[in-house]
Amino acid sequence: MHRTKVRVVQDALDANNTIAQANRADFDRAGVKVLNFMSAPGAGKTTLLERVAADLPGVRVGVLEGDVQGSMDADRLATLHVPVVQLNTDGGFGGECHLDANMVRSAIPALPLADIDLLIVENVGNLVCPAEFRIGEDARVMVSAVTEGEDKPLKYPLMYRACELVIVNKIDLLPHLDFDLDHLLYNIDQVHPDVETIVLSARSGEGLDAWREWLLRAAAREEAVV
Amino acid sequence: MHRTKVRVVQDALDANNTIAQANRADFDRAGVKVLNFMSAPGAGKTTLLERVAADLPGVRVGVLEGDVQGSMDADRLATLHVPVVQLNTDGGFGGECHLDANMVRSAIPALPLADIDLLIVENVGNLVCPAEFRIGEDARVMVSAVTEGEDKPLKYPLMYRACELVIVNKIDLLPHLDFDLDHLLYNIDQVHPDVETIVLSARSGEGLDAWREWLLRAAAREEAVV
Repeated sequence: MHRTKVRVVQDALDANNTIAQANRADFDRAGVKVLNFMSAPGAGKTTLLERVAADLPGVRVGVLEGDVQGSMDADRLATLHVPVVQLNTDGGFGGECHLDANMVRSAIPALPLADIDLLIVENVGNLVCPAEFRIGEDARVMVSAVTEGEDKPLKYPLMYRACELVIVNKIDLLPHLDFDLDHLLYNIDQVHPDVETIVLSARSGEGLDAWREWLLRAAAREEAVV
Repeated sequence: MHRTKVRVVQDALDANNTIAQANRADFDRAGVKVLNFMSAPGAGKTTLLERVAADLPGVRVGVLEGDVQGSMDADRLATLHVPVVQLNTDGGFGGECHLDANMVRSAIPALPLADIDLLIVENVGNLVCPAEFRIGEDARVMVSAVTEGEDKPLKYPLMYRACELVIVNKIDLLPHLDFDLDHLLYNIDQVHPDVETIVLSARSGEGLDAWREWLLRAAAREEAVV
């Protein structure tokens, strides 16, 4: 049984890449840059979007919200008056723990691509499978909250390796944790040497400027990095 | 492609239940109670085991540590001098984001069942797929850290519904968070009415007695609850 299952998964990954390329072609034609935004549940992805999505001069942001079910994050972001489309993985997608290229493709007709410069796809909260499925993105970003411990890069290395930016969030809580920030940064560097990192707090606002500037650069970039 | 994929997953789930029942029969014969212990990455599962595993009078605890890769948590728990077996989902298991019955079955020969009364299986950190795969357990427990936000029961309802105990961890951080504990408990009750909850801090020790007592009751129980 196991051998059969592995073969099916590999076939699915190949089909995924084919569809991801089709998505990418559609986004390129529309002049839309796309970020795949990932983290464990509760690391602060939605708050990080709330804090900057309506505040990027010259860049019109759109959001595609991936969740197993519900539309709470999309409802939060809609109050910013940026285009938000909810994509649920339960109905018709089997309650998947990640977004794949086909799910994103099914949402493209609902996205006002002509009104968007930078599409941020908030993936399902999960440090394993989202890293395995390209969706047609230009870059991948992950959030690693200091409340999750220093060991996460070593336990979920594929996710840290898949991203070109690692945001270390919730540093306002550092005085209240048994947590060594240098140890986390060392572990990130062990699994993905020289990956860019931004250390910040979505709550206090410390470091948010660097996140805003990174997004402006990503939107302006000529070439994709993945 | 999609229709085929769904069918394969359903077949795999049926096979999983068959193997879970075989695991359960083995555990029953050995007189071992089994907990499936789940949470998002970094919610505090390992620390909650460290705090009580060697301190349950009359109950010999064993731990099966599930991780995508590495053995950091197993190494931490081994210092308590309880039997710990590491089960990695990467080599041979395709980097799965959860444990399934077949993976647990492959670890049974390495477990000293005759020396264990209560086997705690620490699943891969993930709020989606672990809830979908029985492993032959007597009960399921999940940890929901207050740092993850109040909305998690609504976004990952299957996990909260699958468990007979929800541990709310990291309450020592409540003074430093924009977080409403009653709101989380309300949301838990919405998706799983009357599920048992224990509110605690593995770090400060507040509430740990209730967790210890719950484990003693689980080890002594005649009948499984799942």
